[in-house]
Amino acid sequence: MSVSAKTNDQLAELRRRVAEIVDLGQAAAVLGWDQETMMPPKGAHFRATQKAALHGIIHERLVDPKVGQLLTSLENASAQKELAELDRAFLRVIRRDFDRATKLPDSLVKDLAIATTEGVESWHRARSESRWDIFAPDLRKIVELKRQEARCVGFAEHPYDALLDEYEPGATCAQLIPLFDDLRRQTVSLLERIDRSPRRPSRAPLTQTFDRAKQATFGERVLRRMGFDFEAGREDVSAHPFTTSFGPTDVRITTRYDEHDLAVAFYATIHEGGHGLYDQGIPIDLARTGLGECASLGIHESQSRLWENLIGRSIAFWRFALPELKTLFPAQVANVTPEDMFGAVNQVERSLIRVEADEITYNLHIILRFEIERRIIAGEVDVDDLPSLWNRLTKDYLGIDVPNDAMGVLQDTHWASGLFGYFPTYSLGNLYAAQLWATIRREIPDVDERISRGEFAPILAWLRDRIHRYGRRYRPGELIERATGEAPNPVYLTRYLGEKYGQIYGF
Amino acid sequence: MSVSAKTNDQLAELRRRVAEIVDLGQAAAVLGWDQETMMPPKGAHFRATQKAALHGIIHERLVDPKVGQLLTSLENASAQKELAELDRAFLRVIRRDFDRATKLPDSLVKDLAIATTEGVESWHRARSESRWDIFAPDLRKIVELKRQEARCVGFAEHPYDALLDEYEPGATCAQLIPLFDDLRRQTVSLLERIDRSPRRPSRAPLTQTFDRAKQATFGERVLRRMGFDFEAGREDVSAHPFTTSFGPTDVRITTRYDEHDLAVAFYATIHEGGHGLYDQGIPIDLARTGLGECASLGIHESQSRLWENLIGRSIAFWRFALPELKTLFPAQVANVTPEDMFGAVNQVERSLIRVEADEITYNLHIILRFEIERRIIAGEVDVDDLPSLWNRLTKDYLGIDVPNDAMGVLQDTHWASGLFGYFPTYSLGNLYAAQLWATIRREIPDVDERISRGEFAPILAWLRDRIHRYGRRYRPGELIERATGEAPNPVYLTRYLGEKYGQIYGF
Repeated sequence: MSVSAKTNDQLAELRRRVAEIVDLGQAAAVLGWDQETMMPPKGAHFRATQKAALHGIIHERLVDPKVGQLLTSLENASAQKELAELDRAFLRVIRRDFDRATKLPDSLVKDLAIATTEGVESWHRARSESRWDIFAPDLRKIVELKRQEARCVGFAEHPYDALLDEYEPGATCAQLIPLFDDLRRQTVSLLERIDRSPRRPSRAPLTQTFDRAKQATFGERVLRRMGFDFEAGREDVSAHPFTTSFGPTDVRITTRYDEHDLAVAFYATIHEGGHGLYDQGIPIDLARTGLGECASLGIHESQSRLWENLIGRSIAFWRFALPELKTLFPAQVANVTPEDMFGAVNQVERSLIRVEADEITYNLHIILRFEIERRIIAGEVDVDDLPSLWNRLTKDYLGIDVPNDAMGVLQDTHWASGLFGYFPTYSLGNLYAAQLWATIRREIPDVDERISRGEFAPILAWLRDRIHRYGRRYRPGELIERATGEAPNPVYLTRYLGEKYGQIYGF
Repeated sequence: MSVSAKTNDQLAELRRRVAEIVDLGQAAAVLGWDQETMMPPKGAHFRATQKAALHGIIHERLVDPKVGQLLTSLENASAQKELAELDRAFLRVIRRDFDRATKLPDSLVKDLAIATTEGVESWHRARSESRWDIFAPDLRKIVELKRQEARCVGFAEHPYDALLDEYEPGATCAQLIPLFDDLRRQTVSLLERIDRSPRRPSRAPLTQTFDRAKQATFGERVLRRMGFDFEAGREDVSAHPFTTSFGPTDVRITTRYDEHDLAVAFYATIHEGGHGLYDQGIPIDLARTGLGECASLGIHESQSRLWENLIGRSIAFWRFALPELKTLFPAQVANVTPEDMFGAVNQVERSLIRVEADEITYNLHIILRFEIERRIIAGEVDVDDLPSLWNRLTKDYLGIDVPNDAMGVLQDTHWASGLFGYFPTYSLGNLYAAQLWATIRREIPDVDERISRGEFAPILAWLRDRIHRYGRRYRPGELIERATGEAPNPVYLTRYLGEKYGQIYGF
C-alpha cells in the first residue's frame, strides 16, 4: 500500500497546521497554570487579554477553510485506503475538532463567553449569600445558549448528547441512563447496609496537626514511588488542585494543604498524580499531532481515581505508606495501624457537598446532576425550579435535607462556566477505573503484595501499555474494551465498592 | 481639531492589531519566564516549539500588509494634522517596528535563528574548552548574517548603526564614539589615581556565610522599601538574574544566591528591582498600545543601575540598610560600620570578567566590545583575529593580560545569540543614570538624608514622573533631555565616579 505524493503533501500540511494549534494550546496552558499558581493578584488584569488573544488565534487557525479542504480531500475513499490506521485516527479527531469549532457561529461563542463570565461572577455572589435569584437570570441565558450550542453541533436522540460528546466523545444519554440507574440502585442498597452496620471508622488519625513542609515531603515521596517524573513535571500549590500538561515532558500538578487534615493535600496529590502519570505517558511522537491528548475526560478521571481510590485508599497501600508517614510524623501516628488508616480514609457519610463526598455517595451526587442537566437542556424544567428539584433529588438519592441553596444547587461552579455534560465524566472515571482495576488484579495476581511494598512500577507499566500510549487514538468505550476485553460495565465498580466497604463495615 | 471618522476607524483598527501583538508578546514572555524559573528540565523539548509558534504569529501579524496600509494612510499629511501628539508617537513606534520587521526577508530571519541556535551551542563548548576554533566558524556565519541585516535595515553612515538602533533607537556610532572616548580617558585616569592610593577597602564583611532564606528576607524588605509592588510582581530564582513584564501589573524579577557572598543576590535584587519599578511604572493606558514599552535598553538599564549603584552602593544607603542587616545576621555584621559596607561594595579591581566588574572598570569592558563590534560589522577585522584584538585592547584599556580565551573573547554569550549592538546600552545606562541622579540631587536636596532613613518614595515618584510614565513615547535622547534639561552628557558619570571613588580611595 503506497501513499500518493499528493496525499502525503496534504497530510504533511494538515499535520503542520495541527502542530501549530497544539503548540498554541500548550502556550495557553502555561498561562493558565501560572495564573493559578504563581501570578500576583493584579496580574489578572492583562492575563485575561493575553489568554483571549491566544484562544482567538487557536480558533481562527482551527476553523481555517483550508483545514476543511484538507480534511475533505484526505477523507475521500481513495485516500482513505492509502492511509495507515494511525493516520485515519488523526483525520477522525481533527475532523471532530474542526466540526465542533465550525458548527458554532462566532456570535454564539462570543455570547457564551460573555454569559459565562457574568455567570461566574453572579454565581460567586449568589453562593456567598445563598440566594438563587442572584444567579438564576444569568443561568437562564447560559442554558439558552447551551441549548443553541446543542442544536448547532447536532444530535441523533437527545440534545444533551451534543454537550456530553464534548467531554466524552461518543457518550449518549441512551447509554449512560441504564449505566447510572444500575449504579444508583446498587449504591443506595450499599448505603443501607452501611447504615445498619454498628461499625464507624474514626477519622481521628487524619485530623491532627501536620506540618505543611513535612506533608509536602510525604506527598513527593509517594509521587516518586508512583513513577511521577519530576524531571518532566512539578507539583505546586493552588486554591483548587488541578493537572495541566504542556506536552508529555512538562506536566504540572497542584495540591493544597490543610494543617489539620492530612487527607486534604495527600489525596489531592495522588489524584492529580494519577492525572499527571497519564499526561507523562503520552508518547512523544503523538504529542503535536492532535492524538496526544486524553481519550476523554472520563478516561482521564479513571487514571486519577484509580490511583487515589483503588490504590491509595486500600489497606495494602497503607501497609506501605504508614511506616513512611511514621518517620515524618512520629508523634501523630506512632500507634496507628494500617487498618486504622484504611478505616479513616474510607469513612462513608451521607453529606451535602460533592467535593467532600466519599467513594460511595460521590456517584449519587453525579447522578443527581446528570438527571437535572438532561432535563434542563431538554427544556423540561425551568431554571426557577432547579432548587426544589435539587432538594427533592438529594432527599431521594442521599436521604438528606438541603438546608440552603449554597449547600445545594449553588455548590458547584460548573453551570456558571457553561460546563453542561461535564459531571458524568467523574462517575465514568470511577466506572472505568474499577473495570481497569479488575483487569489489573487478574493479570497481576500479586498486585496487593506489590502495593504493600511500594512497588507501583508494574501497575504504571500496565496503564502505560493499555491506556496512556494510545492518547486519543481510540474512543473511550473502545479503549476500555481493548484494555479490559469488555465494554464499559458498572458491575466492576459496584462489586469493588461492595467488597471494600463490606470489609470496613463488616457485612 | 477634530478627527475624521475615517481616521478614527483606521486608528482603532491599527490599535486593535497592535494590542493583539502586545498580548501575544506578553504570552511569549510568560513562557520565557517559566522556562528560566520553573520549568522542569525535560520541558525544554516542547517549550521551543511553543515559543516558535508564538513568535511566528507575532511576526506574521506585524508584517501583515494591512498594517502597512493603515500606517501609510494615517501618516499622510492631512491625517497627521488631525492627530494628537500621543497618536503620532504611536504611529512612529509602530512604523519603526513594522519597517524593521518587513525589511528583513523571511529567509534571513530563519538563517539567523538557525545560526544563533548553533552558535550558542558551539559557544558553550568553546568556552568550556577555551577553544576559539570551535566557535569561530559559527560566529563567522552569524557576523555575515548580521551584516546582511544591517544592509536590509539600512543606515546613513555606519552599518553598525542599523544594529544599534534595534536596542537604542536613534543611537549612532557618530554619537557614541566621542561619548565613549571621553568616558574611557576619564576612567583610565581615575584608575591610575586609585592605583596610586594606599587604601584598599576590604570585602570581608560580604564574604561570610549568609543563610539563603534570610538573604531572601533582606532582599524582599529592601524591594518593598524601594516601592516594588508585590501585588503586581514577584521575585524568583534563576541561573542568570533578569526582569520580564507581562504588563505593568505583573512584573517578574529574579535573583540568584551565593551563601558565601552577600553581594551576589542582594545587588542582583536591587538591580532587577530597578528594572521592575520601571516596568511597574508604565501607565495602564499605554500598556497595550505599543507605547507601553521601555524607551530603549539604555533607559531600562539606567533604572537598574541608578538603584543598584547610585543608591544601593552609597554610604547613605548602608546607613539605612545595615541596621536591617544586623537584625538578620547579628553574628556576621554586628561590628561592621556603614563606612565598612561602603568600601566593601565599591572595591575597584582591574579584572577580566565583565559581569564581575566594579562600577569604574565596567565601562572599559563595554567600550572594548563596542570597538570590536563596530570593526567586525564594518568588515574591518576577521573573526580569526578577534582573540588577539580582544587581548590587545584588554591590555590597552584595563592593563591586564588575558590568560585564555574562556576568560577573554569567549566570556559573553551575546555574539553567539546575534546580539551585536547590545553591549553599548549597558554603558549608556550608566551615563543616563548618573545624569538623572545629578538632576535628582539638585531637585531633592535632602535625598541622601532620605535614603539613610530608607525613604525612597520621593526618588521613585521623580522617576515615575520623568521617565516611567512616558513608556516609549519619546526617543531615549529626547527623554533624557526632557528629564534633566540637557542632552546625554558623560560628564555626570565621570564626575560622580571621581567624587565617590575619591572619597573611598582618598584623593
